[in-house]
Amino acid sequence: MHYFVTGGAGFIGSNLVDRLLQASHHVTVYDNLSTGQIEFLKRAQESAQFKLVQGDTLDLPALTSAMHGCEFVFHLAANADVRFGTEHPRKDLEQNTIATFNVLEAMRANSIRKIGFSSTGSIYGEAALIPTPEDAPFPVQTSLYGASKLSGEGLIAAYCEGFGFQGYIFRFVSILGERYTHGHIFDFYRQLLADPHHLRVLGNGQQRKSYLYVQDCINAIFTVIEHAQEKVNIYNLGTDEYCRVVDSIGWIADRLGIKPELQFTGGERGWIGDNPFIFLNCSKVRALGWQPKLTIQQSVVKTLEYLMEQNWLLERR
Amino acid sequence: MHYFVTGGAGFIGSNLVDRLLQASHHVTVYDNLSTGQIEFLKRAQESAQFKLVQGDTLDLPALTSAMHGCEFVFHLAANADVRFGTEHPRKDLEQNTIATFNVLEAMRANSIRKIGFSSTGSIYGEAALIPTPEDAPFPVQTSLYGASKLSGEGLIAAYCEGFGFQGYIFRFVSILGERYTHGHIFDFYRQLLADPHHLRVLGNGQQRKSYLYVQDCINAIFTVIEHAQEKVNIYNLGTDEYCRVVDSIGWIADRLGIKPELQFTGGERGWIGDNPFIFLNCSKVRALGWQPKLTIQQSVVKTLEYLMEQNWLLERR
Repeated sequence: MHYFVTGGAGFIGSNLVDRLLQASHHVTVYDNLSTGQIEFLKRAQESAQFKLVQGDTLDLPALTSAMHGCEFVFHLAANADVRFGTEHPRKDLEQNTIATFNVLEAMRANSIRKIGFSSTGSIYGEAALIPTPEDAPFPVQTSLYGASKLSGEGLIAAYCEGFGFQGYIFRFVSILGERYTHGHIFDFYRQLLADPHHLRVLGNGQQRKSYLYVQDCINAIFTVIEHAQEKVNIYNLGTDEYCRVVDSIGWIADRLGIKPELQFTGGERGWIGDNPFIFLNCSKVRALGWQPKLTIQQSVVKTLEYLMEQNWLLERR
Repeated sequence: MHYFVTGGAGFIGSNLVDRLLQASHHVTVYDNLSTGQIEFLKRAQESAQFKLVQGDTLDLPALTSAMHGCEFVFHLAANADVRFGTEHPRKDLEQNTIATFNVLEAMRANSIRKIGFSSTGSIYGEAALIPTPEDAPFPVQTSLYGASKLSGEGLIAAYCEGFGFQGYIFRFVSILGERYTHGHIFDFYRQLLADPHHLRVLGNGQQRKSYLYVQDCINAIFTVIEHAQEKVNIYNLGTDEYCRVVDSIGWIADRLGIKPELQFTGGERGWIGDNPFIFLNCSKVRALGWQPKLTIQQSVVKTLEYLMEQNWLLERR
């Protein structure tokens, strides 16, 4: 199979690319390298079955041309910055909503009908039902990021109905692991490198979040694509546990052998639109036989250890 | 209050404008007159409190400038063509999703924080729960139109959370009444004028749909805006009944005194993405004290009688 991966130089994308190549597939990555890292594709570039096209998802002609000959599209390119959405609302519209439209139009032009899409648990807003299942009550959006992913899901489903596409929509919790490049572990580790004695924490530290290790995430994606048969296949991907921000800080501090003083900015939410409790019901994907191999604690420590070996990443961003 | 009404020259928009002027408000209409009709604003233009700005919602600078001094925005401008969505997918993206983003950005630039939005029952896709309440299970989209309205709702909710806006989102069933310019009654009447003996019906005629009279719709909008106090207020607007397409045809034929032979194109759906059963649970808006004055049958006949008096409309479109 020839896969096309937008955002294939990113955290999740590049891990997916390595796995697809390991499984002997052909892979074309389309990435503008705005947040993706060429270093993440070092291993992929050793393969003759790999091709990198540097381009932007907003450039529809280039996107359409790059997709030629591919059979399955993983659309992972996105502005994944939930926290600063209100500082640049156009970014989510363009890089997520319009970009997804362009990907679908490029697929239509190339007669490609299968798409995998990285959506988010943020789409549930402040869910009334926790752990939140895929068919939770119709949510009200609380972030521009969530709204833009909702738009992307809606477009994909409409293309499935209208143009005979088959869609695989994955609502991720926060993903951790090798090549992690943004999020709380990144922020905390960078702060602690500069000053191991103090750590500024957004909110009251009691926010409850769920996490999933990137290889477990990719295993789940492969399981769904192999087994799910609907026109539109929507799956939550997460672990059956959550932790508080302070739990995660405890594991990080222990691993670093330090005891920083925590300075909370206060409030239930770390920022406008922050969701104080994200925990997804993942029984739908588990029913397909998948289960995660790492706990949240193991994933947090593994991510920290990765960052400790990759100081160039902290300097770059 | 000074209201800004996008799509104010359209069917629902122009009726809303007349009612706002009757209630002594100031009204600025922003419409590109692509489907809106200047004739619908004839009465409004007699008022010194009325202003028409001809402009496109995709022209953000013009939109922002026209909105200056307004206090409440009704965003009704849209591509309301559900049926032909797959013939021009970009139309829903631009005229609905991006246009709504522009309206929100223009509001932000003008420090206007209240918005009323015409969404749709189509947003529920093929609902598992009928009559469908506002908090129905998270729907899967079946049309580009529904997907674009979902995007609009998501954007509005995110602006409410992120920028302190207050949103009133109305999920309409099909609206009927004076100035009705597209939909099944329009299509059927035009066909029967050309040939009273035959009527081509999309699908098997058993599709069940709900309808609401335009003045009842506007009464409901006013009731919600007066009483609903949440940050994001989402209300289904419809009657507590539905009819089959063949029922509607019967009422139309009776009123015209004809007995056309019905030629069904067949199938449960009239077109790709047509929803064979739309029926909304409207107990939330009824709990605010609103109720419709006209039945579906009365609304259908009233709409037909309006079209019979307005042959110019049939010729123009």
